[in-house]
Amino acid sequence: MDDTFTFPVNVRYLEVDAQGVVFNMWYLAYFDDAMTAYLAHRGLPYDEMTAAGHDVMLVHTELDWHGGVAWNDPIVVAVSLARLGSTSFTLDFQVRRAGEVVVDGRTVYVVIGTDGSGKRPIPDLLRDALGPERPLRPL
Amino acid sequence: MDDTFTFPVNVRYLEVDAQGVVFNMWYLAYFDDAMTAYLAHRGLPYDEMTAAGHDVMLVHTELDWHGGVAWNDPIVVAVSLARLGSTSFTLDFQVRRAGEVVVDGRTVYVVIGTDGSGKRPIPDLLRDALGPERPLRPL
Amino acid sequence: MDDTFTFPVNVRYLEVDAQGVVFNMWYLAYFDDAMTAYLAHRGLPYDEMTAAGHDVMLVHTELDWHGGVAWNDPIVVAVSLARLGSTSFTLDFQVRRAGEVVVDGRTVYVVIGTDGSGKRPIPDLLRDALGPERPLRPL
Amino acid sequence: MDDTFTFPVNVRYLEVDAQGVVFNMWYLAYFDDAMTAYLAHRGLPYDEMTAAGHDVMLVHTELDWHGGVAWNDPIVVAVSLARLGSTSFTLDFQVRRAGEVVVDGRTVYVVIGTDGSGKRPIPDLLRDALGPERPLRPL
Repeated sequence: MDDTFTFPVNVRYLEVDAQGVVFNMWYLAYFDDAMTAYLAHRGLPYDEMTAAGHDVMLVHTELDWHGGVAWNDPIVVAVSLARLGSTSFTLDFQVRRAGEVVVDGRTVYVVIGTDGSGKRPIPDLLRDALGPERPLRPL
Repeated sequence: MDDTFTFPVNVRYLEVDAQGVVFNMWYLAYFDDAMTAYLAHRGLPYDEMTAAGHDVMLVHTELDWHGGVAWNDPIVVAVSLARLGSTSFTLDFQVRRAGEVVVDGRTVYVVIGTDGSGKRPIPDLLRDALGPERPLRPL
Repeated sequence: MDDTFTFPVNVRYLEVDAQGVVFNMWYLAYFDDAMTAYLAHRGLPYDEMTAAGHDVMLVHTELDWHGGVAWNDPIVVAVSLARLGSTSFTLDFQVRRAGEVVVDGRTVYVVIGTDGSGKRPIPDLLRDALGPERPLRPL
Repeated sequence: MDDTFTFPVNVRYLEVDAQGVVFNMWYLAYFDDAMTAYLAHRGLPYDEMTAAGHDVMLVHTELDWHGGVAWNDPIVVAVSLARLGSTSFTLDFQVRRAGEVVVDGRTVYVVIGTDGSGKRPIPDLLRDALGPERPLRPL
């Protein structure tokens, strides 16, 4: 059974461009929402993380489109930890429509201090929330 | 001669929706850019204003559409001071294409302190930059 | 009892600007979503309307801000028919947070043909869906 | 001498998030604009391409952030052809600020018919416009 966390996305009319499909940048908006929901689902609401002095920052992201999403398509974004390093972690995202993978995403984050002190090792509260490594496609 | 300040807008492909015209909310993005350019043009770069401890906040805005804007349309946003009060001011905006007014906008701003102290009278440096009252349509 | 239709909004992190509140244009994104949800709730899914050859277009909108919305604020958008004319209709919107009205919105729409034939009287299927006039604030 | 094509970007206030830097998705908006400007600069305005029955679609994109961009930063996006295949091509993008590379991007496009006929070999008019392969970083 697939128990990967999924986040339902509300595709807005304005996100669909003249080609009739969601414009590419909006997937990064979906992934950002899904990342936050994933952490909250695993016990770490985002503002609890920042209240503890930690924030995350993207250093790399990649997307592969296998198809397009139209306005009324019911889609979800699946989120899973792909890799947990000492100072960075990688999340896998999949935009799914009726079980089909429409877009694959992968993002590498680093942890920074909210006090401007820069990069730091992944703190325990975040490490615990991220869970076990279960990439959605080969690394 | 019409010497109203105008700001050229770069309409992005992503801003055009499935109806083939710019989605309504983007006009507020254009107006925000045009407001900043207007103040800078009149001697008050935005960061100079905030460095002096002042910021502005919208309390009211209204838009009237007379037509739509397509992706490659060369448009400008005209900006003019419509009304200068003691604690608020009103800017008029017009999206113009080849001399035709496509969209009318009007926005009321109040001045706030960047220190969280709330509303305050319009400071002199902003009053000077806003210039004379010259509404683009009747008040 | 207030049985006004409400639509829950998912405020995205990216919609909050450097002032720490939702940037003004995103409210029009919320209203657009809420309008669609309102029609669907009242029996007229948007694609059923367009399949019947009708679409709607904004001719006027206005917003009044009474406060700001932060990232984690649980907000809803209330939607109600304010006025039903022969060729246009007006919807009222209210962004509500814990019962407080944070932003008021009012939008006038006209009906157009999807075939490019321009404006037309409000068709019965839309008139039925719009329901009785119940403005959220004085006209 | 570096004669790579560059496109000046107007960073909007709304694109800066609560962290004080441009939110990640907007770079894809910049790249889309820069791609269009690149083609036009090399003799192929986008609507000439679509009028000839061709359009392009993203199949892959990746971004690497080396830093963040603030509201008033004067940035340009450099664009160069990285690879020209028979049915796809790859563009390299670099967000540059005062000569420093702040973000690297790379996007793979395929060509599709505007008539819904799907993928097709890269047509000559596009091949000519894309120019010689000059990747901005190793492939």
